[in-house]
Amino acid sequence: MSGYPSNVVVVGAGFGGLRVASSLRKAAVHITLVDRRNYHLFQPLLYQVATAGLGPTDIAQPVRAILREQRNLDFRLAEMTGVDFAAKMLKTSTGNIPYDVLVLAVGGETNYFGMTTLGEHAFGLKDLDDAVRIRNHLLYMFERAVHEPDAEIGKALLTFIVVGGGPTGVECAGAFSELIRLVLVKDYLGLNIKDVRIILLEATDKVLPMFPEKLRDVAVKTLWQKFVEVRFGASVSGFDGKVVTLNNGETIAAHTMVWAAGVRAKSCVDQLGQPQDRLGRIKVLPTLQVPNHPEVYVIGDIACPETGDGMPLPMVAQVAIQQGALTAANIVRTLKGESPKEFSYKDPGSLATIGRNAAVARIGRLQFRGFFAWLMWLAVHIVFLIGFRNRLFVLINWAWDYFFYDRPIRLIMHDGNCP
Amino acid sequence: MSGYPSNVVVVGAGFGGLRVASSLRKAAVHITLVDRRNYHLFQPLLYQVATAGLGPTDIAQPVRAILREQRNLDFRLAEMTGVDFAAKMLKTSTGNIPYDVLVLAVGGETNYFGMTTLGEHAFGLKDLDDAVRIRNHLLYMFERAVHEPDAEIGKALLTFIVVGGGPTGVECAGAFSELIRLVLVKDYLGLNIKDVRIILLEATDKVLPMFPEKLRDVAVKTLWQKFVEVRFGASVSGFDGKVVTLNNGETIAAHTMVWAAGVRAKSCVDQLGQPQDRLGRIKVLPTLQVPNHPEVYVIGDIACPETGDGMPLPMVAQVAIQQGALTAANIVRTLKGESPKEFSYKDPGSLATIGRNAAVARIGRLQFRGFFAWLMWLAVHIVFLIGFRNRLFVLINWAWDYFFYDRPIRLIMHDGNCP
Repeated sequence: MSGYPSNVVVVGAGFGGLRVASSLRKAAVHITLVDRRNYHLFQPLLYQVATAGLGPTDIAQPVRAILREQRNLDFRLAEMTGVDFAAKMLKTSTGNIPYDVLVLAVGGETNYFGMTTLGEHAFGLKDLDDAVRIRNHLLYMFERAVHEPDAEIGKALLTFIVVGGGPTGVECAGAFSELIRLVLVKDYLGLNIKDVRIILLEATDKVLPMFPEKLRDVAVKTLWQKFVEVRFGASVSGFDGKVVTLNNGETIAAHTMVWAAGVRAKSCVDQLGQPQDRLGRIKVLPTLQVPNHPEVYVIGDIACPETGDGMPLPMVAQVAIQQGALTAANIVRTLKGESPKEFSYKDPGSLATIGRNAAVARIGRLQFRGFFAWLMWLAVHIVFLIGFRNRLFVLINWAWDYFFYDRPIRLIMHDGNCP
Repeated sequence: MSGYPSNVVVVGAGFGGLRVASSLRKAAVHITLVDRRNYHLFQPLLYQVATAGLGPTDIAQPVRAILREQRNLDFRLAEMTGVDFAAKMLKTSTGNIPYDVLVLAVGGETNYFGMTTLGEHAFGLKDLDDAVRIRNHLLYMFERAVHEPDAEIGKALLTFIVVGGGPTGVECAGAFSELIRLVLVKDYLGLNIKDVRIILLEATDKVLPMFPEKLRDVAVKTLWQKFVEVRFGASVSGFDGKVVTLNNGETIAAHTMVWAAGVRAKSCVDQLGQPQDRLGRIKVLPTLQVPNHPEVYVIGDIACPETGDGMPLPMVAQVAIQQGALTAANIVRTLKGESPKEFSYKDPGSLATIGRNAAVARIGRLQFRGFFAWLMWLAVHIVFLIGFRNRLFVLINWAWDYFFYDRPIRLIMHDGNCP
């Protein structure tokens, strides 16, 4: 296959897999990067596609474009179907790929915790199709509501449930509010804005658990100021597409639910025959290697490394990126006969935005909120967004929205006919 | 429904319907604009979405955003299912809409002339879904070809057939060539560019029939310079997804066919019970009114007005726009008791681009080609593109492509998994 001493196969072109590949660009290895999509997705801005602020093409970048300069790499568009650990063979939808070293980095998926009706009727928010489906659906609810003669049905069409008070849920609820109250009111003049409800349901007693209490309170207050009803201790037990049922028996008439209350390892890793934790993550050594298979590394949302303090790692981009960098270094160390190093997570802090001029930020012990935190959020997301053109387009879209109170991507697409 | 003396219902938010609606903004009428999509599509640039130069959101604009300022207009997202001419009632997927005046402007669709296997395997190029499907498919062919062990299959994967030498076919073939030869060659380093074939099949003896002979020759020469094989007198009789069959029995192994060889009136007008021409267009009076139903106007791709010279009108945006303007004027004249005027088409000329720095243009008796014609093409398309933001984004995308030889939208999307 190559003149290199080692064939490294990386599965997944998300934050983790991409970092492994790029960190190995000068290593004496040949890399095959496998993904079932031909693009890297900047997931942190997915909720902005769902709320018509950005187009799908703004936050996706072809893998081949990102890694074009890297001569020791081949990209392969294929879906992982299994791994033959004994034969050192990755099985894919387009054939087998032998490996000397395998890195699994396929990422997470929405976790409905076995509640199948939720999976059928609620929207997840993990990939571009999810985001465009939410955008289509939300806009379609307004098209229906303005011509709905029954007032009760009209209100249910305009009730938007977001489940889960993590960053995705908070950012999504805030963005819903701004899309509706700053933009759509101008499109739907016959609409009574009082009929619109956005409800954030959180099962515990706090949102944004990774933030200190003071910032959590700021976030909740900001959400209320944006007319988002924040409900704590509210566990969802069912949703049939028209009515949400809570654990306490309460029901809310609503035609839209975004489920941001759980993530698990992609279910394709369930077939690999490796011990997993309750979120489906493969239990790996502190070096991120699979026990008994030192040539197989598992990183990101599908990895559950043994850690000293027993605390599970958050399923966020930063963990995947740091694990990707360590894995690349460990592959090089192993080639040189050195022993691999253990992973330890350096938390760079947390950022979440609730809308224009409003964000919360924690960096080490420093806390920021309001306009300055929002500027930090902007800067960090623009810097980490891959591709100069994407950065430029996202920046222009944001500036457009900011100054004109307009979200230009209000298109109902994908066989975009009315159902 | 309104305090206005007349209810005008316009079906279709394409070039024609939009012009009717906007031209009536100061008239004493209430307008209901009905479309099955919530956006206006700038069709002339659709082939650029198909060839990864522009994103779908760049050439679509929400109808509500375009007509937001117009107070005498309601938009309704609905699909026309029929017309009760006697009761003056438009039937739609979301209920009946009564009218005093009805304007039908639903546009055209791909015409396979009854060849059903073509409809199943070839791609039309009439809406955004078509364009994204072509983009997905073309990129996927390259992903397959680079790992295809069988050389013959590999060549078939890289053979792209465009059928029809009108502006769409010529522009599409030229854009395919530039996408592949200027951009994708950098993505697929293992690819032998000599295996790539782009074949433009034209049944008659000329491309771009609306241009004078000299410009037609320039267009053909330019296509050949871009390695597009132009074949005249080549009628397609079948395509099964792998092999194209011509009328003379010849076969070409190819996995991709874009069918740009025919347009007809949208088939939903077949149920209206009105006399149609061979392209499904409703035969209307020179005033664009339906015979015996002076309150119903038919315009654009679905209209076949009686003309003095008996020449059918081309199915292009300019005809629809001019007919839309006349119809709005006729509606106002009729309200004032005046008689409606007859339509006569003022041909503004023709423009077609074959790629960077290459276009042909005819304005009256003036003929242009090469770089200057290409600049004219750029200017005209930017000026007519609706929405300042869309203009800006299209311009940036074009500049990016022009200077960096890069088409950034190379994403395989819509459930974008490999099949």
